[in-house]
Amino acid sequence: MNNQFAPTNDGSLALFDRLESEVRSYVRAFPVLFDRAVGTTLIAADGREYLDFFGGAGALSYGHNNPAFKKALLDYIERDGIVHGLDLATSAKKAFMAAFEQYILKPRGLTYKLQFPGPTGTNAVEAALKLARQVTGRSNIVSFTNSFHGESAGALAATGNKEHRAAAGFPLAHVTALPYEGYLGASVDTLDYFEKLLDDPNSGLDKPAAVILEAVQGEGGINVASVKWLQRLRELTSRHEILMILDDIQAGIGRTGTFFSFEAAGIVPDIVTLSKSLSAIGTPMALILIKPEFDIWAPGAHTGTFRGNNYAFVTARAALETYWSDSKFEDEIARKSAILAAELKSIAADFPNLGLGVRGRGLMYGLVSPKHHSLPALISQEAFRRGLVIEIAGSYGEVLKFMTALTITEADLRRGLSIIRDSIDAVQGSIPASL
Amino acid sequence: MNNQFAPTNDGSLALFDRLESEVRSYVRAFPVLFDRAVGTTLIAADGREYLDFFGGAGALSYGHNNPAFKKALLDYIERDGIVHGLDLATSAKKAFMAAFEQYILKPRGLTYKLQFPGPTGTNAVEAALKLARQVTGRSNIVSFTNSFHGESAGALAATGNKEHRAAAGFPLAHVTALPYEGYLGASVDTLDYFEKLLDDPNSGLDKPAAVILEAVQGEGGINVASVKWLQRLRELTSRHEILMILDDIQAGIGRTGTFFSFEAAGIVPDIVTLSKSLSAIGTPMALILIKPEFDIWAPGAHTGTFRGNNYAFVTARAALETYWSDSKFEDEIARKSAILAAELKSIAADFPNLGLGVRGRGLMYGLVSPKHHSLPALISQEAFRRGLVIEIAGSYGEVLKFMTALTITEADLRRGLSIIRDSIDAVQGSIPASL
Amino acid sequence: MNNQFAPTNDGSLALFDRLESEVRSYVRAFPVLFDRAVGTTLIAADGREYLDFFGGAGALSYGHNNPAFKKALLDYIERDGIVHGLDLATSAKKAFMAAFEQYILKPRGLTYKLQFPGPTGTNAVEAALKLARQVTGRSNIVSFTNSFHGESAGALAATGNKEHRAAAGFPLAHVTALPYEGYLGASVDTLDYFEKLLDDPNSGLDKPAAVILEAVQGEGGINVASVKWLQRLRELTSRHEILMILDDIQAGIGRTGTFFSFEAAGIVPDIVTLSKSLSAIGTPMALILIKPEFDIWAPGAHTGTFRGNNYAFVTARAALETYWSDSKFEDEIARKSAILAAELKSIAADFPNLGLGVRGRGLMYGLVSPKHHSLPALISQEAFRRGLVIEIAGSYGEVLKFMTALTITEADLRRGLSIIRDSIDAVQGSIPASL
Amino acid sequence: MNNQFAPTNDGSLALFDRLESEVRSYVRAFPVLFDRAVGTTLIAADGREYLDFFGGAGALSYGHNNPAFKKALLDYIERDGIVHGLDLATSAKKAFMAAFEQYILKPRGLTYKLQFPGPTGTNAVEAALKLARQVTGRSNIVSFTNSFHGESAGALAATGNKEHRAAAGFPLAHVTALPYEGYLGASVDTLDYFEKLLDDPNSGLDKPAAVILEAVQGEGGINVASVKWLQRLRELTSRHEILMILDDIQAGIGRTGTFFSFEAAGIVPDIVTLSKSLSAIGTPMALILIKPEFDIWAPGAHTGTFRGNNYAFVTARAALETYWSDSKFEDEIARKSAILAAELKSIAADFPNLGLGVRGRGLMYGLVSPKHHSLPALISQEAFRRGLVIEIAGSYGEVLKFMTALTITEADLRRGLSIIRDSIDAVQGSIPASL
Repeated sequence: MNNQFAPTNDGSLALFDRLESEVRSYVRAFPVLFDRAVGTTLIAADGREYLDFFGGAGALSYGHNNPAFKKALLDYIERDGIVHGLDLATSAKKAFMAAFEQYILKPRGLTYKLQFPGPTGTNAVEAALKLARQVTGRSNIVSFTNSFHGESAGALAATGNKEHRAAAGFPLAHVTALPYEGYLGASVDTLDYFEKLLDDPNSGLDKPAAVILEAVQGEGGINVASVKWLQRLRELTSRHEILMILDDIQAGIGRTGTFFSFEAAGIVPDIVTLSKSLSAIGTPMALILIKPEFDIWAPGAHTGTFRGNNYAFVTARAALETYWSDSKFEDEIARKSAILAAELKSIAADFPNLGLGVRGRGLMYGLVSPKHHSLPALISQEAFRRGLVIEIAGSYGEVLKFMTALTITEADLRRGLSIIRDSIDAVQGSIPASL
Repeated sequence: MNNQFAPTNDGSLALFDRLESEVRSYVRAFPVLFDRAVGTTLIAADGREYLDFFGGAGALSYGHNNPAFKKALLDYIERDGIVHGLDLATSAKKAFMAAFEQYILKPRGLTYKLQFPGPTGTNAVEAALKLARQVTGRSNIVSFTNSFHGESAGALAATGNKEHRAAAGFPLAHVTALPYEGYLGASVDTLDYFEKLLDDPNSGLDKPAAVILEAVQGEGGINVASVKWLQRLRELTSRHEILMILDDIQAGIGRTGTFFSFEAAGIVPDIVTLSKSLSAIGTPMALILIKPEFDIWAPGAHTGTFRGNNYAFVTARAALETYWSDSKFEDEIARKSAILAAELKSIAADFPNLGLGVRGRGLMYGLVSPKHHSLPALISQEAFRRGLVIEIAGSYGEVLKFMTALTITEADLRRGLSIIRDSIDAVQGSIPASL
Repeated sequence: MNNQFAPTNDGSLALFDRLESEVRSYVRAFPVLFDRAVGTTLIAADGREYLDFFGGAGALSYGHNNPAFKKALLDYIERDGIVHGLDLATSAKKAFMAAFEQYILKPRGLTYKLQFPGPTGTNAVEAALKLARQVTGRSNIVSFTNSFHGESAGALAATGNKEHRAAAGFPLAHVTALPYEGYLGASVDTLDYFEKLLDDPNSGLDKPAAVILEAVQGEGGINVASVKWLQRLRELTSRHEILMILDDIQAGIGRTGTFFSFEAAGIVPDIVTLSKSLSAIGTPMALILIKPEFDIWAPGAHTGTFRGNNYAFVTARAALETYWSDSKFEDEIARKSAILAAELKSIAADFPNLGLGVRGRGLMYGLVSPKHHSLPALISQEAFRRGLVIEIAGSYGEVLKFMTALTITEADLRRGLSIIRDSIDAVQGSIPASL
Repeated sequence: MNNQFAPTNDGSLALFDRLESEVRSYVRAFPVLFDRAVGTTLIAADGREYLDFFGGAGALSYGHNNPAFKKALLDYIERDGIVHGLDLATSAKKAFMAAFEQYILKPRGLTYKLQFPGPTGTNAVEAALKLARQVTGRSNIVSFTNSFHGESAGALAATGNKEHRAAAGFPLAHVTALPYEGYLGASVDTLDYFEKLLDDPNSGLDKPAAVILEAVQGEGGINVASVKWLQRLRELTSRHEILMILDDIQAGIGRTGTFFSFEAAGIVPDIVTLSKSLSAIGTPMALILIKPEFDIWAPGAHTGTFRGNNYAFVTARAALETYWSDSKFEDEIARKSAILAAELKSIAADFPNLGLGVRGRGLMYGLVSPKHHSLPALISQEAFRRGLVIEIAGSYGEVLKFMTALTITEADLRRGLSIIRDSIDAVQGSIPASL
C-alpha cells in the first residue's frame, strides 16, 4: 500500500498501446508521458518542458495549477470539505453560487437560474435540449453546420462531425442542421434562409424548440459569428418563440474577451451552457443558466451522480473572485488578443504562397490554410518537436487552433508564435501537392 | 481576493431557493447545509453530525475523505501534477491503468481493454451503447424494467423511469424494455419470453445489438438477479451474438461483495461500465471495459473534455492498492453484509403488521414495504431528524435503500440500524390508509 | 390500338421473370397465368381450373365476380358514373355511406364517423395511428406479437415480421410490441403484464396513444383472441385513456361470422380499420370508423388521390344490400364454419403422428403443424398440383390458412377439404426431419 | 336487394356533414353532389355541368370515362376477368407489362424493372424509400422544400407541408429537406449548398441513401426545375453514390409534355414512382421503376393486398396503346401547352395591378399571385360559380393550378381560360388588403 503519489520515471507508453482502447486520440498526436504542469508549461516524465498553446481544448484558460486556486483547494481538502455532494446544499456550492451571482450575473444585469447537470459539457447540452423541448412541446432543434455540442446521443444529434455521428451506430434524429454565418458565401445571409424556412408552411422544417449555437465555433474551425448575425438570430428566435441556447462551453469564461462570448452582441440567450474552464483548474464541472420563466423542471427530473463536484466549486469560486471582480482581466485579454491577431497576420503575410488566413476573437484564434488542408497538422507536429503543443481544428484539419491560457505571459505568447513561425518555415517545403 | 477556502457559518438555504433551478432534488429531502465529512459522518455548517447511510448514491463506498486517498491527492496537487489531461498520457493515468490491470483484471483472468469516456456514468453508458451498435450494425438495445442507466438521451432511452423519460421532451427510441427477473411473478422465467421473442420471426422485436443490465438494480429498488438468470442471459446473448453490457456503475467496486457484481455468476460481460465509487473519493470518473475483439473504435470517435480527470486517477489507484491487493476487504464486506441482512430481517420481523421484506446482496440492501408505499419516505424523514441520512428507491419509493460506505465500522452500522428501528417505531402510527 | 381486352393464350411467365422486380412473391408459389375467375373458381390461361381457398388473402370474401355486384358495376360504368372522386361528394359515395349506416352501424348501435383514407389497408392504419397520436398527444403505440398491420413506415412499425421490418432500411420506432393472448403460455394472462407495465412508473413503457390489434390475427397464424381477453383489454385501455384501434382489415366484413370481428366480445373499439373485402369485388377501398369524440382531424390533414374509388363504392354498397340487410348471411357462415371446424378436426385426428392442431373462428381457420413447420408448405404445393390454391401463415409458415369465400358452396368446401386431406396423405412421407 | 346502380336525384350533402369525418376537404371547396363525368365535363346530380380544370389532382389526365378504356374495361368485366390478383400472374397484368415495355421503356432505351406496390402514390414512395435505404445501408433521405410525396409515415417525412407533418402526431425523422431550385433566390444555385454539405465532413448532413424529388412540384405550387439543375443533381448524386428517386406521380404520364417529366433533361433516375394517371381511368394503381442493379428486394419483402388491381391493368394498357404508340399525343400536348402558356401570360398582362406570374411546363401550369395570396382561392370560388372546377396550390394557396385533361379540346381549353379571365375580373375588387 502506498498512500503517496509516486510518479514513474519511465516515460514508456507501451501500457497505453496495450491496455487502452483504440478510441484514444490525443496520445497518438502527442506521444509523450506528461507528468506535471505549471501555468503554460507542461512537463514530461523525462523532464522535457512544452509550451502549452492547446489549453486542454479550452478547459485550462487559467493555466495549469494556477496558485490562486490551488491553495484554496488544498485548504478545502485538508479540512475534510465535502467532496461529493450530489445536489445537496454544501458550503462550497453555496459560496460558488454567491460568487457567480455577485461577479457574473449582477454586473451584467442577468437574472438566470442555475442548474448543475452532470459535470461535462455534453451533459449540460443534454439538459438544455431537454428543457427547451419541454418548454415548447416541440421535438426539433436547429443546430448549425460545423457545430460541436457533445458526444452523448442528444448532443451528438446537434453536432456536425460525420464520423462522430456515424459512431452513434443508429441514425440520429430531431435536429436540423442549418448553415452558420458565411456558409453559403459572403453574399448570402444564412438567416434569410432560416427565416424563409420558418415562414413557409411548406418548407419541411418542423418548427424547432430551440436553436443551439456557439458564438465562435471551436472544433468547427474558429468560425466567428458577427454581432449583427447574432442579433438577428436573437430577434428571429424571439419573434417565433424559439429558445436560443448559447453553448458557451468552449468560447465562454473569458475566451473571447468577455466572460460570455455573447456579450459583444448585447443579446441575452434563453439558456447558456458552461463547462470546460468553469472549474478553473481543470476538474469536471458544468452549469446551465436558464431564464427564470423557462425553469419549468420538475424536481429531480434531470439528475446525475457528479452534479456536486465540490472541488470544482472551490476553485471555480476562487477564479471568479480572482479574475472577475473587476475589468482588469478583460483588459489583459484584450491586450494579448491584439498581439496574437497582429502576429498571426504578420505570419500569414510572411508566407504569401501558402495563402493563409487569420480569424478569431479574444484569445481564440485560427490560422487557416484553405489551400493546403494538411499544413496545420504538419505545423503542429513540427512545433511539438520544437517544444510547443498546439491543436488543429476545422472540417479538414485546415485550421491551426490557438487556445493558450488567458493568463499566458506576453513573453510566452510571443515565444510560442515564434515557434509557429519557425515551424511553418521548416515544413513549407514538404506540403503534399493535393489539398 | 481570497485564495483560501472560507466556509460560511451561515446555514441558510435561501440562496438555493432563490438561485438554483427547480430541478434540485436531494436538497429538498435533506434541507441542511453540509460542510465537512469524514468516513461515514456528514457534518453540517451548524456543527450537527449525521450518520451517512446514503453513500453519495453509491459514489462514496470508501467513505468520505478516506485518509488512504486524501494524502495521495494532496501530494499530487502539491507537486503540480497534471490535473486535466484529456486522453494524453499522464503518469497518474498510467499508474491507475497499471494498478487496475494488476489488482483487478489479472487476478480475475479478464483481458478487457480500457476506455475512459467522459467522467460520468451516463457517458460510460453512451459509449457502451455506441460501441455495441457499431459492432453489430444493429440499432435496437434491450434494457429491463426498473433499470436506470443515465440521463443523456442515449442512456435515458434505456432507463425505465417514466418521469425522467418524459423530461426528454421527445419520444425516446431504439430501446426495448423487457421484464427483469421476477417481473412476471415467481412462476415465469422472463428469459423464456426474451428467448421466444428472439426466436420468433414475427415477434416484432428487432434483434438487439446488446442487452444492458444491472446485476442488482439500484434505483429500481434493489432487485437482485439470480446467478442462474444471469448465466442464462449470458448464454442466450452469446448464442444470438448479442453483446451483454453489464452496467456496474452502482453495484460495482465492491458494493455486492466482490469488485464486480457479476463475479458471483461466473460470467464475463462483453462490456462493463464503471463510475460512481471508481475514483474512490467522490470525484468524477468513468471507465468502460471492452472485450478486445469488440474494441473497434476509430481513434477519436468518442471524445470528451474530462476523460482525463487526473485527481481521480490518483485516488482510484490508491484505492485499488489499499483495498484490492488481497481478499481482506471482500471478507470485511461479507462480515458486515451478514450483520446488515440479519438485522434487517430482525427489524422486519419486529413489525409484522407492516409486512416488510428484505432483499439485497453485499452492502446493497433494501427494506421493502409493499403494503405501504409511503412508509420508507416517512422512515427516511424521521431518521434524518434523528441524525441519519438514508435514501428511498423503487417504482413507488417503497424501498428504504441501505448504501453505507463499505468501510463503515460495525459499530456505526449497528448504530444506524438502531436509528432505523426507532424511526419505524416512531412513524408506524402515521402511515396513511392508502398505498 | 386495341380497345378491347384481348387475353393472351400464352401461359408463359417469362415476362414476369424478366421484367418484374425480385420482390414478387405469390407468383413464385403459384406459378400459373391466371385469366378469369368466378365464385371460388380461378381459371388459368390454359383453361385449367383451381378451387380458391386463398380468397385474395382476405379480399375476396364474396368470391370472384359475384354477379350481385358485377351488374351494378357494369351499369355504373355504362352510364359514365364518376370513377375518381377524391373526397368530393358523389352519388355513389353517398349511396355507400347511407347503406353503411343503415345496414351496419344502426343495427349495431354504433355511431362512428367515416373516414375514407387511401384505398389500402396500410393507409387506413396510418390514418388511425395518426389520429390516435393527435388525440392523446402521445407517440407510442402498443401492438402485439405476430401482428400484421401494413407495409408503409407507420404501419410497418406496428407489424411483427422481422424481414418486413428490416426491409424498411432504417430502425422503426415508437411502437412497443407486447405479447398477444397466449404468447407466454396458457398459464399467463398477458394483460397482467400490460397492466403492470402501465401501472409501474419504472417499467420503461411510454404510455401509448393506442393499442392496435387484430381480434383474430391473420398473417400471424390465425391466433384467436378470446372474448374475455378482448373485454379486459377494452376495459384496461378505457381506464388508462388509451385508444383501442381494432384492425379489422382481414378479419372483418363477416370473416369471423359477424360483420365485425369484435362483435362477439361486445366491445366498441375507438377506431376500426376496414379494407380488403370491403369493396366486395376486389377493388381497392379502405375505411376507418372513428368515435365522434375522437374525430379531431383538421380538414385535409390526411389526404390521398384515391380516397374516392367510386367503383368500389358501387360494389361495396351492393354487397351491403345483398348480404347484410338481414341475418341470413351470418347464419350461412355459421353453418359452414361448423363444417370447416369439424372437418379440420377430423383431418387432424386422422394423422395423429403429425400432431396437427386446429384453431380459428367463422371461416378463418388454421391447420397448425407445430411439430413440422415445413409441412403446410408441402401441403399447399401438393394441393396446388391437385387444383386448389391455399396459403400458409404463421411465424414459421406452420399454419395452413383457410380463407375461402364466405359464399362458397358446401360442396366446394367439402371438395377442397378432401383435396387437403389427400394432399396431407401424399406428402406426409416427405417431411424433413428437422422442424 | 338492388343489383343495379341507382343514383339519387337528391343533391343534398347533409349525409356527408353528418356521417363523414371532419378530415373531408374538397367537398367543402366544391359542395356539389357529382354524379357522372365525360371527358372534361363533370355532371352534378342536379344536372348542372362543370368544366374540369382540376383533373382529379392529376389522376385524370386522359379525361373522365375515356371511351378508349371504358370499352376494354367493360369487356374485361363481362368476361369475368380476374379483378384482384395480389402479385399472382394474370393475363391483364402481363398485357400491361408487355405494353409498358413496348411503348414506354424500349423507345426510351430504359431497362427498368417493374415493381407493383400498393395502388397509391404514397405506397410507391414508401417502397422506393425502403429500397434506396436497403441498397445503400443509409437511413437519411434528402427531399426538397415544397415537396409532396404522400401521407403515410415514411413518405410524409419527405413532404414539406407542416400541417400534414404535424398530423402525424409524432416527430418525423430521417429525412433532410434541402432548398429546391430557386428557393434561395435567383443568384444562388441551391445545389452549391447541397454539394458543400456532402463534401464537408462537419456539415451535419448524414449522407443520404437517396434524394427524392419532383421535376415539377405540383402541390408545392408548380415549381419547375430547370434542365440544368436536374442534370447537375443527377451528376452530383451519381458521383456520391446517392440514389435519385424521381417522383413522377403527379408530373408523369405526359403531364409535362413527355411521358416522364425528366425526359427533357436527358437524365435517368435510379427509381421512378408512378401512380395517379397511370391507370388512365382513375382507378387506383401505382408502379415503381427500378434500375436492375438496385432491384435487391427479397421476395415478398414489400407486399400489399391491392398490388394487382387488374381493372387498372386493363385500362392502363389501353391508354398506352391508344396514346403512346407514336408521338401524336406528345405533339398534341405541346400544341395545347403553347395555347395555355400564351393565354395565361395574356391574362397576367391584362391585370397588371395584380402582379400575376405564370410558370409551368406541358399542361401543368400555375397562375401565381405573389402579392395577394388569397386571390387564387377567390378566383377558384368564382370560377366554380361560373361552372369551372380548378384547384389552388402553393405554400400560401398563392397559385391557381391548371391541371386539365391532356385530352381536352382546344375549344374547352379556351372556354375555361375565358371563365378564369372573367372570374379574375369579377373578384379583383374584393381582394383583402393584407397578403
